[in-house]
Amino acid sequence: MNSTATRADGRADDELRPITITRHWLDHAAGSVLVEFGRTRVLCAASATEGVPRWRKGSGLGWVTAEYAMLPASTNTRSDRESVRGKIGGRTHEISRLIGRSLRAVIDYKALGENTIVLDCDVLQADGGTRTAAITGAYVALADAVSHLRSTGALHGEPLTGSLAAVSVGIIDGAPRLDLPYEEDVRAETDMNVVMTGDGKFIEVQGTAEGAAFDRAELDALLGLAEKGCADLTRIQQEALATGG
Amino acid sequence: MNSTATRADGRADDELRPITITRHWLDHAAGSVLVEFGRTRVLCAASATEGVPRWRKGSGLGWVTAEYAMLPASTNTRSDRESVRGKIGGRTHEISRLIGRSLRAVIDYKALGENTIVLDCDVLQADGGTRTAAITGAYVALADAVSHLRSTGALHGEPLTGSLAAVSVGIIDGAPRLDLPYEEDVRAETDMNVVMTGDGKFIEVQGTAEGAAFDRAELDALLGLAEKGCADLTRIQQEALATGG
Amino acid sequence: MNSTATRADGRADDELRPITITRHWLDHAAGSVLVEFGRTRVLCAASATEGVPRWRKGSGLGWVTAEYAMLPASTNTRSDRESVRGKIGGRTHEISRLIGRSLRAVIDYKALGENTIVLDCDVLQADGGTRTAAITGAYVALADAVSHLRSTGALHGEPLTGSLAAVSVGIIDGAPRLDLPYEEDVRAETDMNVVMTGDGKFIEVQGTAEGAAFDRAELDALLGLAEKGCADLTRIQQEALATGG
Amino acid sequence: MNSTATRADGRADDELRPITITRHWLDHAAGSVLVEFGRTRVLCAASATEGVPRWRKGSGLGWVTAEYAMLPASTNTRSDRESVRGKIGGRTHEISRLIGRSLRAVIDYKALGENTIVLDCDVLQADGGTRTAAITGAYVALADAVSHLRSTGALHGEPLTGSLAAVSVGIIDGAPRLDLPYEEDVRAETDMNVVMTGDGKFIEVQGTAEGAAFDRAELDALLGLAEKGCADLTRIQQEALATGG
Amino acid sequence: MNSTATRADGRADDELRPITITRHWLDHAAGSVLVEFGRTRVLCAASATEGVPRWRKGSGLGWVTAEYAMLPASTNTRSDRESVRGKIGGRTHEISRLIGRSLRAVIDYKALGENTIVLDCDVLQADGGTRTAAITGAYVALADAVSHLRSTGALHGEPLTGSLAAVSVGIIDGAPRLDLPYEEDVRAETDMNVVMTGDGKFIEVQGTAEGAAFDRAELDALLGLAEKGCADLTRIQQEALATGG
Amino acid sequence: MNSTATRADGRADDELRPITITRHWLDHAAGSVLVEFGRTRVLCAASATEGVPRWRKGSGLGWVTAEYAMLPASTNTRSDRESVRGKIGGRTHEISRLIGRSLRAVIDYKALGENTIVLDCDVLQADGGTRTAAITGAYVALADAVSHLRSTGALHGEPLTGSLAAVSVGIIDGAPRLDLPYEEDVRAETDMNVVMTGDGKFIEVQGTAEGAAFDRAELDALLGLAEKGCADLTRIQQEALATGG
Repeated sequence: MNSTATRADGRADDELRPITITRHWLDHAAGSVLVEFGRTRVLCAASATEGVPRWRKGSGLGWVTAEYAMLPASTNTRSDRESVRGKIGGRTHEISRLIGRSLRAVIDYKALGENTIVLDCDVLQADGGTRTAAITGAYVALADAVSHLRSTGALHGEPLTGSLAAVSVGIIDGAPRLDLPYEEDVRAETDMNVVMTGDGKFIEVQGTAEGAAFDRAELDALLGLAEKGCADLTRIQQEALATGG
Repeated sequence: MNSTATRADGRADDELRPITITRHWLDHAAGSVLVEFGRTRVLCAASATEGVPRWRKGSGLGWVTAEYAMLPASTNTRSDRESVRGKIGGRTHEISRLIGRSLRAVIDYKALGENTIVLDCDVLQADGGTRTAAITGAYVALADAVSHLRSTGALHGEPLTGSLAAVSVGIIDGAPRLDLPYEEDVRAETDMNVVMTGDGKFIEVQGTAEGAAFDRAELDALLGLAEKGCADLTRIQQEALATGG
Repeated sequence: MNSTATRADGRADDELRPITITRHWLDHAAGSVLVEFGRTRVLCAASATEGVPRWRKGSGLGWVTAEYAMLPASTNTRSDRESVRGKIGGRTHEISRLIGRSLRAVIDYKALGENTIVLDCDVLQADGGTRTAAITGAYVALADAVSHLRSTGALHGEPLTGSLAAVSVGIIDGAPRLDLPYEEDVRAETDMNVVMTGDGKFIEVQGTAEGAAFDRAELDALLGLAEKGCADLTRIQQEALATGG
Repeated sequence: MNSTATRADGRADDELRPITITRHWLDHAAGSVLVEFGRTRVLCAASATEGVPRWRKGSGLGWVTAEYAMLPASTNTRSDRESVRGKIGGRTHEISRLIGRSLRAVIDYKALGENTIVLDCDVLQADGGTRTAAITGAYVALADAVSHLRSTGALHGEPLTGSLAAVSVGIIDGAPRLDLPYEEDVRAETDMNVVMTGDGKFIEVQGTAEGAAFDRAELDALLGLAEKGCADLTRIQQEALATGG
Repeated sequence: MNSTATRADGRADDELRPITITRHWLDHAAGSVLVEFGRTRVLCAASATEGVPRWRKGSGLGWVTAEYAMLPASTNTRSDRESVRGKIGGRTHEISRLIGRSLRAVIDYKALGENTIVLDCDVLQADGGTRTAAITGAYVALADAVSHLRSTGALHGEPLTGSLAAVSVGIIDGAPRLDLPYEEDVRAETDMNVVMTGDGKFIEVQGTAEGAAFDRAELDALLGLAEKGCADLTRIQQEALATGG
Repeated sequence: MNSTATRADGRADDELRPITITRHWLDHAAGSVLVEFGRTRVLCAASATEGVPRWRKGSGLGWVTAEYAMLPASTNTRSDRESVRGKIGGRTHEISRLIGRSLRAVIDYKALGENTIVLDCDVLQADGGTRTAAITGAYVALADAVSHLRSTGALHGEPLTGSLAAVSVGIIDGAPRLDLPYEEDVRAETDMNVVMTGDGKFIEVQGTAEGAAFDRAELDALLGLAEKGCADLTRIQQEALATGG
């Protein structure tokens, strides 16, 4: 299952692209991160407000949600603006739901109290792996927003029960590979996005046979690669959060 | 990881609910199936038309797509009609895309020729596992539609490269279980939908930690259960297709 | 005005198609009926909830409304899904309003109390007369929902002031005929839908000249046929409601 | 069935309100009429264009359609603008379809040739009977548009197979009455709109029991009143069309 | 910058078209005006209601807003109905906002009290300058609505801090001209709409280079023309308001 | 006309905020600029495609259009996403139209040939003057896109007939000031946006009395400030375009 073919960017099959996490990229948001996975560039902004949606009022519990979108010029060929089309596409819906669900998996609603944090993940430039970059960056923005709420006295305990990172893996030309850029993504026979906690457990596993169905051995190899990649991303997140702020 | 707790409906942890596949439920559609997974009841209709969408014209290739929806009264509490709200929700989008993508994985577009088959999967009654019942039934309706097209001379070869079934698995009270009804689904710590081909390969794996993150061993146990369930469903599909028609 | 031409299905001009009313077709809804007028098949589900819409709160009065829709594959040629198009067509609006208005004509809001009953009429298969089948079936589902509310103590008196049935009539090849299937409906020079109470009064009369304008004698003949058909349907409803339940 | 109660405006039960038809109210449209039924005031504009909708191209047949709308301030209490709400209500849909269907009943598509005429009926002031005023005025605007097309050489034969008028009738305080203003309309037990040709045949009959179901004798009385009212309106239309132009 | 070319309608460059202001054109609205600038004809209706939008409740302040729309047949070539298209175009949005903003500039919210006045400006016939005619007429309808509210005791002081008129100016064939009809509007190199108070101050200045950019001297000339035109319109408004009522 | 009140950021009344223009901020777009007016930060991307919209095909003429939007977290308080609300607000429409119209004023369609350039102006951070920053940055992105098209041989002549810059001016505490940040913008009595060509002519003048109407002298003072500001911006644009690329 190993491949002798080298990757276009010279990486090893189990190697991430250069990852950059720039905190405090915006002045207004409670937390904001510009995250880069190679040329993929996502702006993750966490807006915190006191209060929760109507259906949750009086429960003493907080709420976390996310919205994902791509700027029209972020892709190779300009894509239509969803606000102009008047409706959100299925892919956008899917990814927004994935990000929100993933973040909520590391939130203790009680410790958050009746506060709401909205994560906006806007893709400024897309080169594959935008949803996994978004989740990885959104976690850091969320951590900053939590610190911000604590500093203003809006919450006291620790609503984060762990950290969160995500990476894509896939089988290209028969070889399992980590962190696919667009050029590999379109050629992948199988494509999987994996979201994991910082202590190595799974939050989401979404695998899709693009070309041919995959067998259990291939699935196992991809899961192994994802475990390695998420562990690397967790380390990079911790370094970013340890610096300044 | 085994559980001594028995299931509310008395099933073994690796046992499917009673499965019923009724073919030719409608008079007009090229293929139509009423599929039942216990009390979950989905009407799958395959409409075949000559020609393909504009972006595919002249390619010699066919197209298969799917739309999923729930009738308002299919759920415990009546849900709003998406046509009345004027937009399709994220969950509906997600499942429609999942069904279409899964079916396309067993289609040879060239053999299909410039024909389009639309699979409408309408949930008449929901009791958990509606998307997996829909995929399992839709495959049978698709097979009937293909036979219909062949009988009318609209196609000649075999556009189906294999069969397809889907099942849900999850961890409830610490125990991995197959084919979750609603009552188990809402209590599941982890919930996974798996789509497989008749020869035991994976098409889609979608696992989500609802309560707590899951480790690799739990993931492996769930995948094993899904392999067992999809094999059982494949057998039931074959029996249904072998009968009359 | 009599016709020697026999009908394609061998019926007399004043004869209904075979009518089937299957109660309790769903497990969740307060009342549910699968009604069949020949090959036309409509699922009527009555969902009951305590409380009324905002504009009616505190009035002590109940509310009844209806929504009609056709499944995409219910027709000869697949029709687009209104939720996908993002808006409800004029025909759907018209029929939903007709069903709701008709049912409200036999409701005593005061006796219903501040409860709301929504009738969902989803056409599973269409062969002419879907709106009249929907009204005829919806009345039975409504009656079951009222019994259900009474059994749960949510209401005490009798909110139903009478029963309700509906039938289509039309002039085909110069002959007035009862209960038109699709094949006759498209050829009708005049098409009329009539909703009547069980004691022979009119609730709605909707006649349309499709081809040529009709004179008063033709109108009178059609009204007479409708009176006969609604009386037959009333008897069939009573038999269905008298059985089991 | 006669009533000793006099009407608020002093009319006899079978008397129309003062009817005014002002032709050529606009400079641009091929035909335009300001029609007044008492205080109800509707602007009917017929726009003619060469060509037909895509689905009718090459058929040699023309097309006629209509759109009805109410200005927000036309009613007692300002109503929301449908363009602002982003969707057309069921009532608007229903009436637009009724007007279009009625007009098409007196059109010979072949004689019209591949021309399209759109009738816009905008209610400037509403005091009951807006749909019947709209149909009565739209016929005159349509006749003017047809003359205009003939004068430009766009058509040669006579596409109008007859004339068309419409009136409302209803039972108020037990008495059948003609041409209901708003004050009577809201109190009507039964409300019926009737569209007739100039030679006394029926195009549309739409009767609705608002309060109590109506029997056959009441229905017959209402139909008689409508015949009388439409005959009067036909005479007024003919006078308007005979004058100047 | 002077032009020897005479205008198609024989006016001097600084002369308004014939202006007509007809008050009380509708029976229901608190104020209503049919305003005509030459062949441009706009119906301005002011609907007054007690209470204010939710976000303003309890403030003691009133609210004034406006909605502008064109009837489909008001233009040379019929334009689509925005309610049918399901969304309001950018131009309509812009003009509605301009009218509302302009009117609010002469309103003392405190003196208005918690009342809301909505100005509906519907273009019945368009021949250039519809937005300036709308503002000029809307002011008069607003003044009538204020008087109406005062007469019913709903307000006591004077919420109007001044009067308001608007006019278009433009450069056509090198010459600055006042109050452009459609035929001049489409040929204008520069087009400016100016809203002024009755005492000669500016509320809105919106100038656009349609063909070539304009220099400061041209801008100054246009502003001078607008001052002259608005003064003339103010006089006509005062005369209209002084008469009857 | 000078004010003794100093501005919060210490600028002179006729001084711009620090302006930064970063070209080539994206990899895919034909031209892309991150423009900063103080803390206001707008990403301007110019996407070029061969061909023009349907209504312009075969004319030999090109097309330029623009879309403006704000990211949800760009403002002090998070604003709703227009794609989620399902419609574009009036303000967004207005600004998109303003940007497109302004850019088209310096385009020679014939020299552009049948190419389309779309300018996406996405506000990443908002602190007043987002529309003027967008226009100023969009011009530079447009110039880069034109160079790109020339380098690929898609066009040969010079479609740019001049350069373009825009700035806001306003009266705050009685003093006319240049380039208002949010804090001044909300307090401005009068607010004007001015778009000018590089050679000092006007393209757009949009002035609005927010608090009190303004007289001719104030208007003149604001125009003078805008002329100064646009001249400064033109110089900065030229420097940016002269560097590297």
